Amino acid sequence: MANCLVAQSGGPTSAINASLAGVVRGAQNSNEFDKCLGALCGIQGLMEERIKDITDVDVDKLSLTPSMYLGSCRYKLPSAQDAPEEYEKIFDILKKNDVTTFFYIGGNDSMDTVSKLHAYAEANNETIQFIGVPKTIDNDLCVTDHTPGYGSAAKFIATTLLEVCHDTAIYPIKSVTIVEIMGRDAGWLAGAAALARNNYSVVPHLIYLPEVAFNEDEFMEDLKDMIDKHGNVVVAVSEGIKDSDGVYITSTTAAEDKFGHSQLSGTGKTLELIVKERLGIKARSVEINIPQRTAGHSASLTDIEESIQQGEFAVTKAEEGMSGVMITIHRISDIPYTTYLSTTDINDAAGLIKHVPRKWINARGNDVTDEFIQYVKPLIQGEVNLKYKDGLPDYMDISDLL
Amino acid sequence: MANCLVAQSGGPTSAINASLAGVVRGAQNSNEFDKCLGALCGIQGLMEERIKDITDVDVDKLSLTPSMYLGSCRYKLPSAQDAPEEYEKIFDILKKNDVTTFFYIGGNDSMDTVSKLHAYAEANNETIQFIGVPKTIDNDLCVTDHTPGYGSAAKFIATTLLEVCHDTAIYPIKSVTIVEIMGRDAGWLAGAAALARNNYSVVPHLIYLPEVAFNEDEFMEDLKDMIDKHGNVVVAVSEGIKDSDGVYITSTTAAEDKFGHSQLSGTGKTLELIVKERLGIKARSVEINIPQRTAGHSASLTDIEESIQQGEFAVTKAEEGMSGVMITIHRISDIPYTTYLSTTDINDAAGLIKHVPRKWINARGNDVTDEFIQYVKPLIQGEVNLKYKDGLPDYMDISDLL
Repeated sequence: MANCLVAQSGGPTSAINASLAGVVRGAQNSNEFDKCLGALCGIQGLMEERIKDITDVDVDKLSLTPSMYLGSCRYKLPSAQDAPEEYEKIFDILKKNDVTTFFYIGGNDSMDTVSKLHAYAEANNETIQFIGVPKTIDNDLCVTDHTPGYGSAAKFIATTLLEVCHDTAIYPIKSVTIVEIMGRDAGWLAGAAALARNNYSVVPHLIYLPEVAFNEDEFMEDLKDMIDKHGNVVVAVSEGIKDSDGVYITSTTAAEDKFGHSQLSGTGKTLELIVKERLGIKARSVEINIPQRTAGHSASLTDIEESIQQGEFAVTKAEEGMSGVMITIHRISDIPYTTYLSTTDINDAAGLIKHVPRKWINARGNDVTDEFIQYVKPLIQGEVNLKYKDGLPDYMDISDLL
Repeated sequence: MANCLVAQSGGPTSAINASLAGVVRGAQNSNEFDKCLGALCGIQGLMEERIKDITDVDVDKLSLTPSMYLGSCRYKLPSAQDAPEEYEKIFDILKKNDVTTFFYIGGNDSMDTVSKLHAYAEANNETIQFIGVPKTIDNDLCVTDHTPGYGSAAKFIATTLLEVCHDTAIYPIKSVTIVEIMGRDAGWLAGAAALARNNYSVVPHLIYLPEVAFNEDEFMEDLKDMIDKHGNVVVAVSEGIKDSDGVYITSTTAAEDKFGHSQLSGTGKTLELIVKERLGIKARSVEINIPQRTAGHSASLTDIEESIQQGEFAVTKAEEGMSGVMITIHRISDIPYTTYLSTTDINDAAGLIKHVPRKWINARGNDVTDEFIQYVKPLIQGEVNLKYKDGLPDYMDISDLL
């Protein structure tokens, strides 16, 4: 009897269950695994032995359900030197459940966990294999061309910017709309807003990413220029923009609330206040917030299909005996969009951040280049065939988590 | 030669172009009208004679494009006593363009304009007819069962709440998520959040509407109770909730920004701060913002179809010689959902607000009743067959407005 076990970790995406569905389908089709087990709430839940058999789960429905079907955790596994008992516990539980391969679906923190467990196995002659399956809307994992979850987030962001364009265009007045997009360290998500542009609209007019120091005076100049040209101006901005000293823009407008606490506004709200104050013009801000990572109803078919493929591919790599690796995707060409799957040593991805290359941002630092657009465009293509029930998406039952 | 002219006004909805498409299709099929003209930017654009021929517009594509294809205005037409020259100008332009019927698609301010123009026509023996076609996501127009645009907004809100449920469920911790929904005076939109509940989730756990005075202490009690039961708690709240003195909740936490200006947080942010301060628990807020009124990609098929029907019906009423009326929809039964169209005197709708009946809110004032859910459920049914291009919704070209 040999089982595989899979868990999910980090923040939600619309495609993380598609990766899970891929692993389950791979296990269903494999001669190597009898059962596919799922640990609830990541490595933390595994240590509490919160395990369920998901071998026969409805993979089609699962693949279109956003956020983690198995729950998540933010637990950072200590080193084996510091906490050997945790490692012993994890391996005991895995062995007790006849687990020969552990798949961990997550971002760079989760890859760090895979790295540590694999190293412990090697050092202690344990044969259990550990394979990382990437996901993060932030698209900031190294080695791989892009991460599962990013395409769906990019599609929702671009759709929202297009719809904001239709919303802001209706009044013949001058106004500024700031749209705040996730991304503390990397601007992949905010840059995707550029996809909203089409044959009738250049919205967003300006895009600011964390990779370039934000200069408030230049921002005012850029805005005045765009207001003169277009009247209604829409700005896409990463939450993580910082000034040339590396200080977050949000830190500059902390205000005291009625409890006497200093409260940071969001980046969008901060820029809205600056625009109102310095230009005296109608301004508002929109924070896309949680929906950009869980709007399963607007997922990218390309993203969902690639996520399933990476999950299935992980199982084939387990069958080949691999461990201590992360699944990667590599691009051969943009047009036609052609890729292949591979693996990389887990330590090449764990704990590292991939930024938007400086050459994919224009010289002024207020827009992305055509290269960026060519890169992200294939990732948002295609719409999922989501089932609806009573007017709402028919997602997987997550009673186990509620 | 007789033409009809149509214009749009007020704030965007996902269905306001479906009403426009209905008027255009009605005019195309009518023996009465040669051309269907559109005035850009409402009554304000009409006075500037910004008119285009939209007789041959692609009605199918138009009906699925959110926000106003013709643009909008927030102009309040003065009385004929105060500004007779404006009325003369409007009638001159209408006559010059051979307009025999003017259709105005909008909310209660727009109905006020229709009322004034109709009264002026009657007083001055002008034969031009004026017909109001309702729209507003707020659903606060009187006489009619519900307003075009509301169903699509309700569907997006409920979808978002369902996806927020999947997002918040993943961590086994205690937390509070406040979701702020539009509605300054009426709670129709926030109440629609209740539709997110299904066989595995009771999210949102609490719903607060402007119709019931908000009591902060009771809110804390309600929250503690729900946190004990569910851990992760999601609250849906109208932006317009007020305390028992009628003071907006947002007014209680004004903070000074770095410019020394008093800045109001949004309602969601205000409650988030209160929860953090009083319960010392992880809290966050999400403002659904612009997307709830322009997420055409998630429109309700029922809403779109009804909006088209009301536009077409308006043309048949024009053919019958009616003027000074607003199109209305009346419900015969919830299950099966059965309605019929009619008209009402424009003055029964102009400037009035329809609130959520107190009996459709529970006694505690922290949820809606089953009657509310039965009322709104039919309005979100069905999904539109939106075309996509390059991964994004293929909406109408709005170059005229940009």
